[in-house]
Amino acid sequence: MIRSLHEMTEVATEEKARGHTIGFVPTMGYLHEGHARLIDECREEADVVIVSIFVNPLQFGPGEDFERYPRDEKRDSRIAENHGVDYLFLPAVEEMYPGNPSVSVHVLNRTSILCGKSRPGHFDGVVTVLAKLFHITKADMAYFGLKDAQQIAVVKGMVDDLNYPVMIRPVPTIREDDGLAKSSRNVYLTETERIEASQLIRSLQAGQQLIIDGEKNPANILNEVKKYIKKHTNGSIDYVELWSYPALKEVTTIDQPVIIAIAVNFSNARLIDNLILNHYGEMVTNPFQ
Amino acid sequence: MIRSLHEMTEVATEEKARGHTIGFVPTMGYLHEGHARLIDECREEADVVIVSIFVNPLQFGPGEDFERYPRDEKRDSRIAENHGVDYLFLPAVEEMYPGNPSVSVHVLNRTSILCGKSRPGHFDGVVTVLAKLFHITKADMAYFGLKDAQQIAVVKGMVDDLNYPVMIRPVPTIREDDGLAKSSRNVYLTETERIEASQLIRSLQAGQQLIIDGEKNPANILNEVKKYIKKHTNGSIDYVELWSYPALKEVTTIDQPVIIAIAVNFSNARLIDNLILNHYGEMVTNPFQ
Repeated sequence: MIRSLHEMTEVATEEKARGHTIGFVPTMGYLHEGHARLIDECREEADVVIVSIFVNPLQFGPGEDFERYPRDEKRDSRIAENHGVDYLFLPAVEEMYPGNPSVSVHVLNRTSILCGKSRPGHFDGVVTVLAKLFHITKADMAYFGLKDAQQIAVVKGMVDDLNYPVMIRPVPTIREDDGLAKSSRNVYLTETERIEASQLIRSLQAGQQLIIDGEKNPANILNEVKKYIKKHTNGSIDYVELWSYPALKEVTTIDQPVIIAIAVNFSNARLIDNLILNHYGEMVTNPFQ
Repeated sequence: MIRSLHEMTEVATEEKARGHTIGFVPTMGYLHEGHARLIDECREEADVVIVSIFVNPLQFGPGEDFERYPRDEKRDSRIAENHGVDYLFLPAVEEMYPGNPSVSVHVLNRTSILCGKSRPGHFDGVVTVLAKLFHITKADMAYFGLKDAQQIAVVKGMVDDLNYPVMIRPVPTIREDDGLAKSSRNVYLTETERIEASQLIRSLQAGQQLIIDGEKNPANILNEVKKYIKKHTNGSIDYVELWSYPALKEVTTIDQPVIIAIAVNFSNARLIDNLILNHYGEMVTNPFQ
């Protein structure tokens, strides 16, 4: 377990000097199967696996739950060990942000939609911390879940723009047996809601089926998804949106890879899910290739 | 001569794999003795010397001379060769900025004073291009002249904030025999002005002498410098300022390293110069140690 930035960089430098590739999984801790899958993918590809646990204050808004965000170092380090993590990196906020910053990194596009809409500044915080962590860990590859499709698109944009020597690896969403996307927040669902929640992926698949059948009009696809959610759940829709992917620009006809993304509020949990599809309606697993 | 970003990164990666350290001198070309000195320092310290020539549109304001900025590739590459440069890197604007940027880097402090005051956005452009070039060249060390003291302080701030694995090397200002700081713009001086211009360093030294003599009040030091310039030149003062260095914050008493910096307009040239001094009035050659 490494807490000092200097030590992490020293260790990473030594590994690089030995000719090892470094895979990096940035997390906010409280690891679950989604993270484990990212770590497994990383373990598969890289010589050295670094997992960071850092609840990044910069990506939380004023009203958000930075203080209450769950933390469990012991459990996290057990999971990390079980999945063959070489270095668990837990930097202190005071060392990551010693105060009086000289520069800031701003995300210029992709942020006014989806989850960015309700979280102003959130993605600025995400790219700023990664702009630092990629350097500290000397990552060659970094692994992100496609469940947070907007996040990974924004991060890929930053990496491309600033020519970071890091390959961004998208990892498919892990699902329960009934199709519900894994999330720490699923435990907040009531028993009835938990059953209904498995319908969310089906609503997306209803939209996907339209594309497979040749539907080109985004509005019709979005209506189908909304109708399905309303019919099969009591959740209230936060958003149902369709954008090009990974650029996240408006599409007027389905002629390129797109994302259908939803956010639905249940009584105690807001769930998100998405499908990234090519213009035939087939799943795209690596949208950055 | 390398023009492609991909090739530059490949070459740098190969050099690193051989265990070589990479020294980097970013320039806008039209190399003069100031650049040559940076290159020599770099050659002294690093295994591999990369010099970039890139007239960075992002750091020019709307009214400024981006289009007219002097370019002379042939002469530059001859100078580079004479000084033992291993790789001259001349990226194209279209590849550096393919359009529709995803992120931007902003400088949050040090920019409302000195040269930043009259060039809004200038330092944002400087740090953005360096945020890219440091990655592309895989620089271990980067060399900047202390004549542009504000620039190097801003760049050091970015490197520290984003944990770039680059050591920023300040290089002392190169001067003519009579003390005038070397600058491409010196050729625009009339014969009389050229003689007067050698008084600029003396005005700074007059301020320095006060500090050596125990003067602690910045206002008195600034007055002395201004008085000296007015008495010995016909140039018109753009600014005479004193700040802490490298933080560039206000100082009320001389109890830490400070910069005395001046900008003076002559008929066809605006000249800048500065001294960085500790609180005894001694020259500081590496303010980042």
